[in-house]
Amino acid sequence: MNLAQKLGYPENTKLLIIHADDAGLAHSENQATIKALQNGSVNSYSIMTPCAWFFEMATFAKNNPQYDCGIHLTLTCEWENYKFGPVLPISEVSSLVDKNGYFYKTRADFKNNAKPSEIKKELTAQIEKALQFGIQPTHLDSHMCSIGVTPEILEIYKELGKTYNLPVFINRQFVETIRLSDEEYNYENTLLADNLLIGYFADFEKGELQKSYERALDSIKSGFNVFLLHPAFDDSEMQGITINHPNFGSAWRQIDFDFFTSNECKTKLEENKIQLITWRDIQGII
Amino acid sequence: MNLAQKLGYPENTKLLIIHADDAGLAHSENQATIKALQNGSVNSYSIMTPCAWFFEMATFAKNNPQYDCGIHLTLTCEWENYKFGPVLPISEVSSLVDKNGYFYKTRADFKNNAKPSEIKKELTAQIEKALQFGIQPTHLDSHMCSIGVTPEILEIYKELGKTYNLPVFINRQFVETIRLSDEEYNYENTLLADNLLIGYFADFEKGELQKSYERALDSIKSGFNVFLLHPAFDDSEMQGITINHPNFGSAWRQIDFDFFTSNECKTKLEENKIQLITWRDIQGII
Repeated sequence: MNLAQKLGYPENTKLLIIHADDAGLAHSENQATIKALQNGSVNSYSIMTPCAWFFEMATFAKNNPQYDCGIHLTLTCEWENYKFGPVLPISEVSSLVDKNGYFYKTRADFKNNAKPSEIKKELTAQIEKALQFGIQPTHLDSHMCSIGVTPEILEIYKELGKTYNLPVFINRQFVETIRLSDEEYNYENTLLADNLLIGYFADFEKGELQKSYERALDSIKSGFNVFLLHPAFDDSEMQGITINHPNFGSAWRQIDFDFFTSNECKTKLEENKIQLITWRDIQGII
Repeated sequence: MNLAQKLGYPENTKLLIIHADDAGLAHSENQATIKALQNGSVNSYSIMTPCAWFFEMATFAKNNPQYDCGIHLTLTCEWENYKFGPVLPISEVSSLVDKNGYFYKTRADFKNNAKPSEIKKELTAQIEKALQFGIQPTHLDSHMCSIGVTPEILEIYKELGKTYNLPVFINRQFVETIRLSDEEYNYENTLLADNLLIGYFADFEKGELQKSYERALDSIKSGFNVFLLHPAFDDSEMQGITINHPNFGSAWRQIDFDFFTSNECKTKLEENKIQLITWRDIQGII
């Protein structure tokens, strides 16, 4: 049986989770995520426990358990002026941080410095922080897919899913795109998302991000699809965070918000007979 | 000799530092502070090392040593949804934090829980963090004047000033307004600011904050005056931080920014023959 059948749908169903990453990053990100859940087509999100606006989003999560809420496991910080680091004391996970005590900017620096034992310790602490706040997480995923840089590190991620009985988001193609190792990944007994739908910088640059999203929904395949977006407002806070980083920058995030709260998006989902599912549905059958 | 004479001015000079608190708190606060230093009448500021936007402001401080930059020693977090805590591991300073690991909201909770040894350890770490970033601090001051709740705690603050050879901002009347102890404060051998100029909620509520600032400059006395303001923009980020807290809220902070970058303010300073000085000037003579 494939995932659709296990969930009670016909074999060829186009399953889709519409997932907002990066909740907790900023007030702008939180407010856009909340609106996209309440009024838009987004039906799942994940939260960054190390960030300054975690508390605001965690409060929403606790008060609104009807929405899927995952832990956006965080090991890198891509921004120039807005920095975050481990939830554990730096002295306990010093291999994860730069000279200022913040996460490395790139997956390469992370991979070249991070000790697996410290990765596991920090990510466990991130999950425990969310649990301590009263969040009932529905899944785990990985900020910047940093967890996918080597097969050994990906194993930590999979182990955490088993330990906490939570599904982990893994798309094989995505992991192998960002791989920084020649060794083989092991996908045995692993639930894999068949297709990752996500925006590309080339489309953003051409002003065709929204069109690319429409095309993605029009050409969606049967199987287990996950659409990753990053809703936020193109406001001063978000412009400050994403300065000199137009890739997934504030203008991009505003487009994500606009499209996934639009009627066009809802119509596309209906026209293409897309079946929305959640990580909670999956959690029930793994 | 009084301070004016020590600085080479006549005895009855109206000395004034125009000081922006809370840099590092938010992108909005940082940008408004920078503009108020560059284009306005503000000539000194202090930075909160535990906050998410510390890095942005610390980078500005490092690149612009011509402006006074103090360490805004932080032991309380007054906001509802935007939280911060110690720069040290929570396990080392557990008396300073609530059950979620954040600073207490009120001076009373801080006073009732904080161990003096942990206060000293945390504040030392905040100063060391700024030094490690390459900031050359000109003074120390205290967020919410939390350091003034008891004479014993105020002593820690004064000691830190001696250890780091930095002037500390103390206004006797201000300290005794927020006192939470019956014991006597000791001001021997302490440089005291004669007058604190600051906005009051009653004036803000009446829509007369700007007028109260004009009046304060018109009636300024000779001696060592410090004007404390909190420049920021009344934008979405700042509204999110100061939600349900109009006292020093985002609308208030916008008025602070507007007035202290206005020509009216510059004219008042000239008309009243106010002599601007900095903490760096004072640092040179203590």
